[in-house]
Amino acid sequence: MNLISEQYRTVRARSVEICSRLEKEDYVVQPIVDVSPPKWHLGHTTWFFETLVLLPNVPEYKVYHPEYHFVFNSYYESLGARVIRTDRGNLSRPTVDEVYRYRDHVDAAMMKFLGATMVVGPIAELVELGLNHEEQHQELLWYDIKYILGHNPLFPPYQEDTIENDLAGLDSGWHNIDAGLYEVGYAGNGFHFDNEKGRHRVFLEEAAIAKSLVTNQEYLAFINDGGYKRFEFWHAEGWDWMKVNGIHAPLYWYEIDGTWYRYNLSGLKALEPDEPVMHISFYEAWAFAQWKGMRLPTEFEWEIAARHFNWGKLWEWTESAYLPYPGFKRVPGPIGEYNGKFMINQKVLRGASIATAPGHSRATYRNFFHPQLRWMYSGIRLAKNE
Amino acid sequence: MNLISEQYRTVRARSVEICSRLEKEDYVVQPIVDVSPPKWHLGHTTWFFETLVLLPNVPEYKVYHPEYHFVFNSYYESLGARVIRTDRGNLSRPTVDEVYRYRDHVDAAMMKFLGATMVVGPIAELVELGLNHEEQHQELLWYDIKYILGHNPLFPPYQEDTIENDLAGLDSGWHNIDAGLYEVGYAGNGFHFDNEKGRHRVFLEEAAIAKSLVTNQEYLAFINDGGYKRFEFWHAEGWDWMKVNGIHAPLYWYEIDGTWYRYNLSGLKALEPDEPVMHISFYEAWAFAQWKGMRLPTEFEWEIAARHFNWGKLWEWTESAYLPYPGFKRVPGPIGEYNGKFMINQKVLRGASIATAPGHSRATYRNFFHPQLRWMYSGIRLAKNE
Amino acid sequence: MNLISEQYRTVRARSVEICSRLEKEDYVVQPIVDVSPPKWHLGHTTWFFETLVLLPNVPEYKVYHPEYHFVFNSYYESLGARVIRTDRGNLSRPTVDEVYRYRDHVDAAMMKFLGATMVVGPIAELVELGLNHEEQHQELLWYDIKYILGHNPLFPPYQEDTIENDLAGLDSGWHNIDAGLYEVGYAGNGFHFDNEKGRHRVFLEEAAIAKSLVTNQEYLAFINDGGYKRFEFWHAEGWDWMKVNGIHAPLYWYEIDGTWYRYNLSGLKALEPDEPVMHISFYEAWAFAQWKGMRLPTEFEWEIAARHFNWGKLWEWTESAYLPYPGFKRVPGPIGEYNGKFMINQKVLRGASIATAPGHSRATYRNFFHPQLRWMYSGIRLAKNE
Amino acid sequence: MNLISEQYRTVRARSVEICSRLEKEDYVVQPIVDVSPPKWHLGHTTWFFETLVLLPNVPEYKVYHPEYHFVFNSYYESLGARVIRTDRGNLSRPTVDEVYRYRDHVDAAMMKFLGATMVVGPIAELVELGLNHEEQHQELLWYDIKYILGHNPLFPPYQEDTIENDLAGLDSGWHNIDAGLYEVGYAGNGFHFDNEKGRHRVFLEEAAIAKSLVTNQEYLAFINDGGYKRFEFWHAEGWDWMKVNGIHAPLYWYEIDGTWYRYNLSGLKALEPDEPVMHISFYEAWAFAQWKGMRLPTEFEWEIAARHFNWGKLWEWTESAYLPYPGFKRVPGPIGEYNGKFMINQKVLRGASIATAPGHSRATYRNFFHPQLRWMYSGIRLAKNE
Repeated sequence: MNLISEQYRTVRARSVEICSRLEKEDYVVQPIVDVSPPKWHLGHTTWFFETLVLLPNVPEYKVYHPEYHFVFNSYYESLGARVIRTDRGNLSRPTVDEVYRYRDHVDAAMMKFLGATMVVGPIAELVELGLNHEEQHQELLWYDIKYILGHNPLFPPYQEDTIENDLAGLDSGWHNIDAGLYEVGYAGNGFHFDNEKGRHRVFLEEAAIAKSLVTNQEYLAFINDGGYKRFEFWHAEGWDWMKVNGIHAPLYWYEIDGTWYRYNLSGLKALEPDEPVMHISFYEAWAFAQWKGMRLPTEFEWEIAARHFNWGKLWEWTESAYLPYPGFKRVPGPIGEYNGKFMINQKVLRGASIATAPGHSRATYRNFFHPQLRWMYSGIRLAKNE
Repeated sequence: MNLISEQYRTVRARSVEICSRLEKEDYVVQPIVDVSPPKWHLGHTTWFFETLVLLPNVPEYKVYHPEYHFVFNSYYESLGARVIRTDRGNLSRPTVDEVYRYRDHVDAAMMKFLGATMVVGPIAELVELGLNHEEQHQELLWYDIKYILGHNPLFPPYQEDTIENDLAGLDSGWHNIDAGLYEVGYAGNGFHFDNEKGRHRVFLEEAAIAKSLVTNQEYLAFINDGGYKRFEFWHAEGWDWMKVNGIHAPLYWYEIDGTWYRYNLSGLKALEPDEPVMHISFYEAWAFAQWKGMRLPTEFEWEIAARHFNWGKLWEWTESAYLPYPGFKRVPGPIGEYNGKFMINQKVLRGASIATAPGHSRATYRNFFHPQLRWMYSGIRLAKNE
Repeated sequence: MNLISEQYRTVRARSVEICSRLEKEDYVVQPIVDVSPPKWHLGHTTWFFETLVLLPNVPEYKVYHPEYHFVFNSYYESLGARVIRTDRGNLSRPTVDEVYRYRDHVDAAMMKFLGATMVVGPIAELVELGLNHEEQHQELLWYDIKYILGHNPLFPPYQEDTIENDLAGLDSGWHNIDAGLYEVGYAGNGFHFDNEKGRHRVFLEEAAIAKSLVTNQEYLAFINDGGYKRFEFWHAEGWDWMKVNGIHAPLYWYEIDGTWYRYNLSGLKALEPDEPVMHISFYEAWAFAQWKGMRLPTEFEWEIAARHFNWGKLWEWTESAYLPYPGFKRVPGPIGEYNGKFMINQKVLRGASIATAPGHSRATYRNFFHPQLRWMYSGIRLAKNE
Repeated sequence: MNLISEQYRTVRARSVEICSRLEKEDYVVQPIVDVSPPKWHLGHTTWFFETLVLLPNVPEYKVYHPEYHFVFNSYYESLGARVIRTDRGNLSRPTVDEVYRYRDHVDAAMMKFLGATMVVGPIAELVELGLNHEEQHQELLWYDIKYILGHNPLFPPYQEDTIENDLAGLDSGWHNIDAGLYEVGYAGNGFHFDNEKGRHRVFLEEAAIAKSLVTNQEYLAFINDGGYKRFEFWHAEGWDWMKVNGIHAPLYWYEIDGTWYRYNLSGLKALEPDEPVMHISFYEAWAFAQWKGMRLPTEFEWEIAARHFNWGKLWEWTESAYLPYPGFKRVPGPIGEYNGKFMINQKVLRGASIATAPGHSRATYRNFFHPQLRWMYSGIRLAKNE
């Protein structure tokens, strides 16, 4: 078996492994619009290979099911004669077993294709993109599984020995960044996304960046000091978001009889004071920094300083908006839609998280989310000006 | 085994039978707020017996699971310390297998209780109410299963030999009602709901009521005559409802390449012209009647005339609002909430449908729905003044 | 001047008189969708005569302004090439002065038409309908003026000597209705609306109806007994309405430092305990009756008993839904839209109010509103079964 | 009269002049949430001086009206005992005459204060901020007046000789920016906002920026080429915004019988092909640039290149998100809320517009709006990479 077949098999198996402790019912629900049913992730990542690799390149390949294009495509713009408005979480069919059969079918065709040919050039790049795409969905699977179980009144545990163990921090103190001209952006020859390409120079002013993430204990001090009740720390939109949604603590935190608990994948547990605070929105991260008299780093400060501290437990909010690098161009066709169309109203997060696929993290990686979101593994690293 | 045990076993088994062809995934989803996940129906009807029969009357009975009261209660008003807002369709747990285990547990306790004691008086009435309550949910199960499958882009059939076969009508012509004083309301000694109690006199003017239901063919003529485009046939609210929701045909109807299809439980099939039109809202039934130059019957005209025609395929919209009969009083306690609190903004439907449980139909039965709803088996019977 | 000219002049002058103490700014705003800007009422009632009387009957009459049909029509269904979505309260033009010029223009043409011709038959009926239509809008003008001023943080008084003075009640005790067959509906030869036509027989059971309206003091007892906090008194929809809208007292009531005030047209004043409670929704009226262990009368009980008590201070909620009388038929054309299309999801109110135009009240008059509305002068009369 | 008194009088008079052709009714309405009633602007800018200058510094000054703080404050967070939810456009009182009396009262007190004392230091800065604040509202007044009149079905003209005359462009061609390190941010000693302070270095890559704005003709070519129908040009959020709101042309454009018109302050007129396209959202500006195969400039490219082209007719969308400059700190207290709390989900616009107050434009000025807004005078300048 060649390298690309091997990679394909490994990545595809990991998605199945992540879901292996789910009950069938867990695969189906969509409690909020940001969460997709796990079976949709399994089908959608499969659809990617079927539609973008097999159909254009394997003449004898036949579409597995004519309606799956409609069910597993991300965008339902033009649906032909029989339009049905629905959300992913309303679809009981195809069943979980059916989705796994679909995966098996496409995997067999892919393994045959990858084994028989010397896959190089644009096709190899497409397969690699498909695998990175699947790894992104693997991370989303973790977020979504946690949301589905963590918002069930029974608080079912998912696994005792979870990815969330051993979160406690490592470093302490500050790293100083000197004023000067730096280079940022992806520079190597490996896989990378179009949004991190375009290595370019940026000028940074002198600054200091924390070597550690903010902990639960530190965040509790913010809550106890009225952090969620004092307008002066918040963006106007963050304040409104908090009021409308009744937010007064990070996601998954519950105060029961005066003690703080948080749901994690092993169940509802007492809050660990020394773990980094997680599942917080940009608005909360920013308000916390305001309360501290500090700020969040920019994505370029983060990238330049990253080799001076440990990162990778949580995605770290930056002050930077998600915008194109100089010279960014959309590739024509569907692949070109991958990143550019999202470059508005989102903030960059840097680093990686405990849910990130192995080998899927780079110091130049630009993750992005809307400022109100918090179901992902997000945390806070502080910066200051002197 | 005594009679009430036997009834209990029969009714409870029927709920399971209705669901027997579902995939596990079908039990979970809630595509619109009016549809409940089938597993919720199975749990909720069980919760009724646990909470209202076993707990107050069987000292040694222990609650099966402390959170199920929260999960399967219809009303989530006061939830104690740990409040989670969620919709039924977001709950993957308890699983389907768990819900069936819950049913088995409660059924065993109930059979023991019903077998050991001479159950009479208020307790027997409560069990009977519980069984009628379950029969109502059995009818809802049919509506909800159809909605879940009929709004899936794969249009999966549920069963070939469905309750929807053999809908075609029987009677024709008109029955004349003479002006005069009549008695309406439940008069016997059997089970009945509080809303049909209170036999009383009503004066009816001379009228005629159709012996048959309006057919698909007749309804198509209305569509083809611009029925959904002519304001003069509609209530102002009905017109707005239609525009906002893009309604232009009954629920489950699809026009594909010039031919009309309708989803039924055996799949997507060509429309049968002679079947009674079904799955229509009150607004549509009323507009159709206006277009015909006729009207819908009142619930009292219907009740007085009912023995002169066949009924029971579909619930029939009446012009009557759902209001209390003279002398109606709420029973104190939770049972008293059963009907009275819904007596606003709803229309009475009379008859029964193909989904109605055997023995659960009476000429005095007052069903009720909001005027915009149409996922139930509803149809049209016309009336006129001479 | 003939009688119909005289009537026309009197009714039209009354609309102007009602608005005479408004500031120009008060004519413009629309704080909620149910309230129309006073200048819209003045324009709309004028548009009625221009469009339905002058244009079809006076060949030389020219439309005053081609866009006013669009601005002052109640229904904006088809707007031609230049569609602008807007609400009445967003329209600063035509100005108040312009609207008064429009009134003068149409009034001059109408007076000429009514003076020159012997206006009889259908045209006379149309003019009479137009005047009754204007009288209905005069009542709405009072509601809307009160709402506009009463929801301004400055609480400006409208007039010291207001229609709201001298509300205190007169009668006490109960009137007994014997069981029996009665006739209801309009029977005379005067003006009446299509919805009250169709005199017909109804059978009433024995009942008692209060001779007086419920007072502020009695209603306060309901509040103080937790009336707005006890689910058992409410319709499910009423309860939701109350929760969503934060309702805990009648409209215009404010509790300031432990004392209850209510805004009336002369300003913010302490609550008068002996005045009838007003500005309450059907939901509240019904909940109050439940709390009393009584009920609201039906519209037929009210009509039969009405000569046994004083009525006319407030519109009185009945339990009856607003439905067509036997034999009701829509007149073809726009006049036919007057009432029939509203016969859904509304409750009948009987009587008349302090804001009702002189001569515009009849015991057979059927007013109707949605159950949640309370900006009109509505009150509570109780009924009971023995 | 000293300089600051003179400035005060001039700026305050300009607000009155802008409104001088309004009818009273035009002062009152608020057709969309972004538009404020003109009388609110007049009151709010007055409230600024009363609350932040007079009350803390003039011991004998008495609040003009105790409720005006509530009516004219921008933020209604805590309203005390008598809470009334309302929108600005629902308030008919205080009347326009009252608001002008309020202005006269505060102006007299201010002129006395400014004339009597040698106003220097923080107080002088506060007065200057108040005047700049008023100038910002003067620009909003133009936007809002245009929106109010331009969305009225009568399309009333505001003035023949409007600020919108003589929009046609001047320059052509491209200005090249060399790669290198540049300084940006306010450097002088005059008035400036906190968001433009903090002069700092940025590195720019080589680029070219257009010397002229995109014209109506060029924008029409985009429309005619299916610009509003081709997903590939749009941000995903822009596409959704467009679909949900039925956008298919710039604001104020109307296609009537195949000809394009646009409302401007002198009425509804045929589109001028050579005028710069205006009243477009960031989404549309960005999609247009994508269609051209170009892009929008960053705010720093714009600032560096600004002296090489004419600017000041329209605010020009940039690709830059509205973020703090290095070292930005909120000033404590209410003044500190001025800018920082809005630094999320907004795009920077650079330049100035025909509605900008004289002397209120600087090359370092950072205006900002949400990407979907278009009621301001916004336009498009293109950039490209070579």
